[in-house]
Amino acid sequence: MTDTVQFIADALETLGPKVVVTEPREIEPWVTDWRGRVHGASPAILAPASTNEVVSIVKLAAKHGVPLVPQGGNTGMAAGATPPADGSAVLLSLRRMRQVRSISADNRLAVAEAGVILADLHARAHDLGMRFPLTLGSRGSCTIGGLTSTNAGGTQVLKFGTMRALVAGVEAVLPDGNVHSGLGGLKKDNRGYNLDQLLIGAEGTLGIVTAVALRLVPAVADRAVAWAGVDSPARALDLLRFLEARTTAVEGFELVPEDSLQLVLKHIPDTRAPLAGSHCWHVLIEATTADGSHDIAAEIERLLAAALQQGLIGDAVIAANEAQAEAFWKIRDTISEAERVDGQTLAHDISVPVADMPRFLTDAAAEVERAFPGVIASGFGHLGDGNIHFHVRAASHAASDWYDREGAAITRMVDDLVTAAGGSISAEHGIGQLKRAELERLAPPGRIHALRAIKHALDPLGIMNPGKLVP
Amino acid sequence: MTDTVQFIADALETLGPKVVVTEPREIEPWVTDWRGRVHGASPAILAPASTNEVVSIVKLAAKHGVPLVPQGGNTGMAAGATPPADGSAVLLSLRRMRQVRSISADNRLAVAEAGVILADLHARAHDLGMRFPLTLGSRGSCTIGGLTSTNAGGTQVLKFGTMRALVAGVEAVLPDGNVHSGLGGLKKDNRGYNLDQLLIGAEGTLGIVTAVALRLVPAVADRAVAWAGVDSPARALDLLRFLEARTTAVEGFELVPEDSLQLVLKHIPDTRAPLAGSHCWHVLIEATTADGSHDIAAEIERLLAAALQQGLIGDAVIAANEAQAEAFWKIRDTISEAERVDGQTLAHDISVPVADMPRFLTDAAAEVERAFPGVIASGFGHLGDGNIHFHVRAASHAASDWYDREGAAITRMVDDLVTAAGGSISAEHGIGQLKRAELERLAPPGRIHALRAIKHALDPLGIMNPGKLVP
Repeated sequence: MTDTVQFIADALETLGPKVVVTEPREIEPWVTDWRGRVHGASPAILAPASTNEVVSIVKLAAKHGVPLVPQGGNTGMAAGATPPADGSAVLLSLRRMRQVRSISADNRLAVAEAGVILADLHARAHDLGMRFPLTLGSRGSCTIGGLTSTNAGGTQVLKFGTMRALVAGVEAVLPDGNVHSGLGGLKKDNRGYNLDQLLIGAEGTLGIVTAVALRLVPAVADRAVAWAGVDSPARALDLLRFLEARTTAVEGFELVPEDSLQLVLKHIPDTRAPLAGSHCWHVLIEATTADGSHDIAAEIERLLAAALQQGLIGDAVIAANEAQAEAFWKIRDTISEAERVDGQTLAHDISVPVADMPRFLTDAAAEVERAFPGVIASGFGHLGDGNIHFHVRAASHAASDWYDREGAAITRMVDDLVTAAGGSISAEHGIGQLKRAELERLAPPGRIHALRAIKHALDPLGIMNPGKLVP
Repeated sequence: MTDTVQFIADALETLGPKVVVTEPREIEPWVTDWRGRVHGASPAILAPASTNEVVSIVKLAAKHGVPLVPQGGNTGMAAGATPPADGSAVLLSLRRMRQVRSISADNRLAVAEAGVILADLHARAHDLGMRFPLTLGSRGSCTIGGLTSTNAGGTQVLKFGTMRALVAGVEAVLPDGNVHSGLGGLKKDNRGYNLDQLLIGAEGTLGIVTAVALRLVPAVADRAVAWAGVDSPARALDLLRFLEARTTAVEGFELVPEDSLQLVLKHIPDTRAPLAGSHCWHVLIEATTADGSHDIAAEIERLLAAALQQGLIGDAVIAANEAQAEAFWKIRDTISEAERVDGQTLAHDISVPVADMPRFLTDAAAEVERAFPGVIASGFGHLGDGNIHFHVRAASHAASDWYDREGAAITRMVDDLVTAAGGSISAEHGIGQLKRAELERLAPPGRIHALRAIKHALDPLGIMNPGKLVP
């Protein structure tokens, strides 16, 4: 602990009280993870405003051997930005690095500092008739640095990919204090190992991401949002294939089970079912066009009519206006919230190959419900990416310690089923602290060895977010 | 050398004479690089037919401390697959691993072994109404493993990206004999550092790529190939921006200077100028559509007519048929060959930010011509990617040792200009042996340190293509 005290004293002297915050009340909101499950402690928050200040901090941390825990909006799902409880590490918040250093419609590129909030970048791009196409529920708080370090996904991955596909380059302070500058905006560059790609999704364990070059696409000229009722996840995937064969406009395709819809209608105010009849499964479809040359709603309506005729769907409706479109999205976006209100829920962010997801979903839900009588298992989300949020809800009569008593065993079973299906136990949320043990249990030893070797090679002192990602 | 002898004896015993080739006549064609500049030696060629055989070889190589030099079609431009001249390393040819393990139009994915030749994959995809969109001049010899290990580019990067964007996953034998299996076809997977991306472009220095999952796109339904005359590279880029604002169909956009065209007409049989008049610069445009719903040639013709009216171009012609389209491409594809016939040429595969390329090209050519009187400097190629093949040709009266005498100094000047412009001294050809010294001279020390740390972490024995890529 002495080293930490000395480190903070040195940082205060070098960088001043604007950068080094030691007031407990100002620290307290940031040491617990977003879901409130993991409680950490930190003797200070360092809030640098420039890459140079980050360099100073990293050099001091290396000198004193004090670990840094980088943090953006603290909206992560795997407690990757939560410090350990013993106070041995120091939070490094990128929140003051909020400059959009450049943004150009001509180059279709924005360079945003790590602390830029996603919604702010959306607005900046929109002002130029452009768009940064990644979006997710926490867009009002999450930051570009965190999105990059977790290789975030969201609802438009189907068309635009995850952060990995949208990042053109990364600037980061490496553990030795060197700055990796990948912001040059080169479309082609084969000068050795791609450090940008290594830093994307590294959860701050290999360096501190300070700025990111991001690809922009033309703004949406028109969008259509539709809701369709289908018999099964397999039919939902058939519908996606049907649409993809006929249009390139589909960019969101979200699966919603009937019971999730019912939970939303029950617990979330101002929601109503998009369709009159009852359907076992639903899909929310978003289609967009960047040129105004054709009527996207008419195109989607025509395609859904054809799908109805072919028996792919039971019914469908196109949002008549923006308010209705937002109402459809609200259902999708409040499923987790409705579940939380309803009772105890265990969430799993998993993926399998896209074509295998319908069967996996049905089979895995049945197996889990059989093994843990009373629970309800179902999945919702990004069917077109093979990525489902597989949630297991406690029986209504479950004891309040259900989560603590049964959670680990259920998660182990889900993770075993996913692994047996060739899938991933973390599709988009990352490993953080929460999935580290499961990663170690289930990943091939050769992979664990490679991850550890890379981590140790670049961060031999272990000062970069230790205890995260690498088992 | 004793270790090498013992290694080969062990390999022969374990894997048999089909895998272990020691006949000098069979080795000889493979120990010189494609451009004939670097001559190596190897006591054997190992030609495994399966990933398991590669594992056996890697384990034996580790046991005996014998370096392996992986090789595909031996068409690399940086001598990355050429063994050292002292015979201390052994060639590992992936040529017998030629299975397309799976290919699916539904999943838009092919899994090809490292030795599959690009043209063969093109044909297999075409049979299914699909397409693997990366292509380049050596498509009849180059292999999927080599393309992956060099992050190859080519002429359709503008629309589809380099290999890095087209590889969905990599299977590789790591230096410790573990197999990294990234072929699962998961669209989303956040389980730690992305080893696939690390192996892409690693030139065999971190492991042996044995198979690759590749993204397919729908086959071309129709294409239009056009040739336009422009005043300057800046005007060429204006034309590209003009087209891109109006259509998503452009997938190739190649810049050709007038003097390159003249060299082709002079030295390559059966070529003729596409346009009647004379123009300082030319662009070859390829536009495609995957659905047959509209007339792509008519669309491009209309757009070029508008560009002509706006003064962006001096003249243009659309290929009237496939034969003419191929004739246009032949001009582009034979520039290097025509230069070689004409005299001594020094090639540089460089990139700068796209918007900066027109000015860089003009300024750098002038500076080089001023510094080395008599030479002719010009660039051709992938303007839309900011990647130009910047070639410096000897004066017609130059001595036969011009290349050896002046080459290094000219290359240093070009590389300095590129670096000052924030560009890359290797846009798509890689580092191999030929650019290692320049990489060390020009890369930030922090980057060199990171490359070395990663290399040493994953290959502590140095058995994976030593002397390549990492300075």
